[in-house]
Amino acid sequence: MRPATTTDILERLAAVIESRKPGQPGADPDRSYVARLLHTGPDAFLKKIGEEATEAVMAAKDCERGGDPARLVGEVADLWFHSLVALAHFGLGPADVAAELARREGLGGLEEKARRADGAAAAQESQP
Amino acid sequence: MRPATTTDILERLAAVIESRKPGQPGADPDRSYVARLLHTGPDAFLKKIGEEATEAVMAAKDCERGGDPARLVGEVADLWFHSLVALAHFGLGPADVAAELARREGLGGLEEKARRADGAAAAQESQP
Amino acid sequence: MRPATTTDILERLAAVIESRKPGQPGADPDRSYVARLLHTGPDAFLKKIGEEATEAVMAAKDCERGGDPARLVGEVADLWFHSLVALAHFGLGPADVAAELARREGLGGLEEKARRADGAAAAQESQP
Amino acid sequence: MRPATTTDILERLAAVIESRKPGQPGADPDRSYVARLLHTGPDAFLKKIGEEATEAVMAAKDCERGGDPARLVGEVADLWFHSLVALAHFGLGPADVAAELARREGLGGLEEKARRADGAAAAQESQP
Repeated sequence: MRPATTTDILERLAAVIESRKPGQPGADPDRSYVARLLHTGPDAFLKKIGEEATEAVMAAKDCERGGDPARLVGEVADLWFHSLVALAHFGLGPADVAAELARREGLGGLEEKARRADGAAAAQESQP
Repeated sequence: MRPATTTDILERLAAVIESRKPGQPGADPDRSYVARLLHTGPDAFLKKIGEEATEAVMAAKDCERGGDPARLVGEVADLWFHSLVALAHFGLGPADVAAELARREGLGGLEEKARRADGAAAAQESQP
Repeated sequence: MRPATTTDILERLAAVIESRKPGQPGADPDRSYVARLLHTGPDAFLKKIGEEATEAVMAAKDCERGGDPARLVGEVADLWFHSLVALAHFGLGPADVAAELARREGLGGLEEKARRADGAAAAQESQP
Repeated sequence: MRPATTTDILERLAAVIESRKPGQPGADPDRSYVARLLHTGPDAFLKKIGEEATEAVMAAKDCERGGDPARLVGEVADLWFHSLVALAHFGLGPADVAAELARREGLGGLEEKARRADGAAAAQESQP
């Protein structure tokens, strides 16, 4: 069985965020934190990017001295989460970031390789 | 066949970063930017998290007034990239962040659903 | 007539912050925001430095398009204020920063020149 | 005789920055770092605010564990310095920040007291 990395949690989270945009069914600012951020406007979630970046840095500094790695994970999760909100606001999503990373970081062939590997893995898994 | 997901790309990028850690084959600071960051130590890449967060915020502010969305994508890519370097340094990876996001953002059931869906997909692909 | 710049508002603010440190008369966390920050510990005010830096950047981006300069002033005030809290926590103050700025930015002679100028002014003031 | 105050130094530094603005005698980007920042435009110095804020936070985290306080002073100096460049770009200066701090932080009476004190000094100076 394939681990959680094969699921696209970021994509699914992006879909949830999408459903919180003004005009969408989940857009009620009183019932959803994301709806509230998107309703309030860019400064509300952009400010969080700066804040969570700082908290990630502080958690990492603590990890240098035996701090809890789970806190770093949590702060990076917050940072990426608010990045996703910002991307959604401007009609973008995690796939755009991933494509840019693949392109930029010399992983140009990765997407295609991944597709082949997935095909091969599926083939293997299907073997008796 | 399933296209390469966002998380696939982050995982593969994390694997590349892993290969740049001190003691690894790709760890030569003279030949790799990531090796250099990891060699120099936490402050080198943590500083970049703060810097790239600010650049993402500025790019987003520009998008509010017709700026190029590709720049926002590029800055978020930089931000996530340096987050991955920090995670790698502390023995963590994007799967930890994704799991935390799934747990935290009420996507608790997603991972399991995804696993079932992948199983089903694999079963289907395996059909003759 | 000399403007407000001749008063040392930063120094006076630093003295107020000093009086809010644990063990000082004004240290009650329930009655003072600064006392609360100092009581909670470094992460509380360091996080604010990251947050206020981001808000200053956003306010400046808005100023580029006709935004209110007073907002930029307010955010820089917040940024400097929380810097002063951090400095105070580590036994430092604005005079240390000013001395470093004078030293570093090629203003080496300024302090002495200022002293001479003040001396001249004092001499004038003392004239009958 | 009064020593040069913190605010004096900030004001003098602001005057130096002012002389580096486009159109001013010291505006040559090839000869001055500040001229280069101001010439390149807001993103150049705003980015530094985010970067230096992160470095100040990291230096403070190190101070928690016996790190050198001089590094924190240096990073806060960098942070304030680039704040001054941003303020200058928008026609503002440290006196605006100091006035806002005085107003906001319950130092309301300071500025006026200072003005009265200055008035008294000016009156003395104006005496024959």
